[in-house]
Amino acid sequence: MSIIYDRVALIGLGLIAGSMSLAMRRAGLAGRIVGTARSAETRAVAREIGLVDEVFETAAEAVKGADLVVLAVPVGAMASVAREIGPHLKPGATVTDVGSVKRAVIRAVAPHMPRGVHFIPGHPLAGTEHSGPRSGFAELFDNRFCILLPPEGVDAGALADLRTLWQGMGANVEEMDPDHHDLVLAVTSHAPHLIAYTMVGVADDLRRVTDKEVIKYSAAGFRDFTRIAASDPTMWRDVFLNNKDATLEILGRFTEELFALQRAIRTGDGDYLFEYFTRTRNIRRGIIEAGQDTDAPDFGRIGKA
Amino acid sequence: MSIIYDRVALIGLGLIAGSMSLAMRRAGLAGRIVGTARSAETRAVAREIGLVDEVFETAAEAVKGADLVVLAVPVGAMASVAREIGPHLKPGATVTDVGSVKRAVIRAVAPHMPRGVHFIPGHPLAGTEHSGPRSGFAELFDNRFCILLPPEGVDAGALADLRTLWQGMGANVEEMDPDHHDLVLAVTSHAPHLIAYTMVGVADDLRRVTDKEVIKYSAAGFRDFTRIAASDPTMWRDVFLNNKDATLEILGRFTEELFALQRAIRTGDGDYLFEYFTRTRNIRRGIIEAGQDTDAPDFGRIGKA
Repeated sequence: MSIIYDRVALIGLGLIAGSMSLAMRRAGLAGRIVGTARSAETRAVAREIGLVDEVFETAAEAVKGADLVVLAVPVGAMASVAREIGPHLKPGATVTDVGSVKRAVIRAVAPHMPRGVHFIPGHPLAGTEHSGPRSGFAELFDNRFCILLPPEGVDAGALADLRTLWQGMGANVEEMDPDHHDLVLAVTSHAPHLIAYTMVGVADDLRRVTDKEVIKYSAAGFRDFTRIAASDPTMWRDVFLNNKDATLEILGRFTEELFALQRAIRTGDGDYLFEYFTRTRNIRRGIIEAGQDTDAPDFGRIGKA
Repeated sequence: MSIIYDRVALIGLGLIAGSMSLAMRRAGLAGRIVGTARSAETRAVAREIGLVDEVFETAAEAVKGADLVVLAVPVGAMASVAREIGPHLKPGATVTDVGSVKRAVIRAVAPHMPRGVHFIPGHPLAGTEHSGPRSGFAELFDNRFCILLPPEGVDAGALADLRTLWQGMGANVEEMDPDHHDLVLAVTSHAPHLIAYTMVGVADDLRRVTDKEVIKYSAAGFRDFTRIAASDPTMWRDVFLNNKDATLEILGRFTEELFALQRAIRTGDGDYLFEYFTRTRNIRRGIIEAGQDTDAPDFGRIGKA
């Protein structure tokens, strides 16, 4: 691989930005990587572990002279960051983001982008339940999808460079429009996260089943929910507030189905349950065949415990 | 370890029974392990891979002379198996089971146990999303809990032997009463499974989001749900039908909480969401501290992809 951007500025230094820095270094994709974060503690840790080549105090300083600027802050902070950096962007620079919702980010960021700057929203479908500057690793994007959402009339060269960057960091790049993205993600990520948060909250609330027992006997099922429900609270608050319509639509469908299954349990309709559970088995097979998970028997956490 | 039971009979040869056979062999806990399964195909596979020392055609034959009989069939099949084996059990033998619900199993099995046979229900909290005679492995129970539910007046020696067996297979043994067991498991396992099945069913139903996209972009969240929702349909149908009250109670609480979170999204109450998500994070920490999962960043499936 050869250098695609001479200078990359990462705004926000959490799991995604940190992993991008390490993945860009791994493949030698950037001449110099600088960054900033709102919290002084995050900046200090990033300096201490050498997460980027240089840490700036403000986003306005960090973006100066950058050929690529990556907005890697919670969705709710995008507008103020965009407003801050707008006047300091280098003409011809590309600005992208890594937010989990896209319509709201585009609404928040696009108005602040000066003429001659290429804004190409993006969303790498990768993450873990950990957050913060120490949580990144170079392999995070390997064989994961990164969705780019190029606006109409986008500069072809700028788009090609951003594509090559993500591919160089290990990702498979796809394109989508923002409306469709927000609906697909509501199904595959946003609604499941809210549901996992809810179930863990219920368990935490139950007084007859002590916390200790819930923890001790967390079999497969609940254990996986707690992993999902340990994800970054700020990020997820912003996701739900900014993909409200699609998330609420999917949750409405979910509630309908849940009520139908509850009624089948109540009335003892075993055939309905069996057929439903058989159907859901197949979709799992598809995911394994698509290479997005392994067939290793995970509930037993073999080789990891 | 030394031999605890001269002859063990496994009724059912799926994931749990198969893993028990391999775990008993690993530690040399049984003189001879025999088994049976209702399906001819399962019996043929078990013979082919030498899962047990001898495979019988019927449960009645399999239990003859056995010192320990393990009922490892779906909960809905327990009554008919108990009726079949009752007259053939050796006096002084111990009968246990591995069903995921306990009140219903006790109701189904206890009436068929002859005097002089020790019936001690059990439930190993271990499993994977795979099923069938090829899915077992000796390490399945290592560091997992096995709950025993000894009835009043149980024979102390029979209980001690069963405890030692499970410990020899790697498990931590705990005792509980059946009512409490069924409630705890409704929270930690049964309700989460139903919820995962529901969400995967919703995704499968949505016509605007094609199956292919759901599979392709199955980020963390949905991907973990599909793993749970790939579990054995027969087993889970029987679990829900036989732990109806506790499961419906927990699902009722779940729906209440979900509605509160939905309203917070609809009204834009970010503080409510943030506080909720922060609270659920803590329970995850407890599970890791209790040694029931690892802190490795799992969404990235490091070292497994």
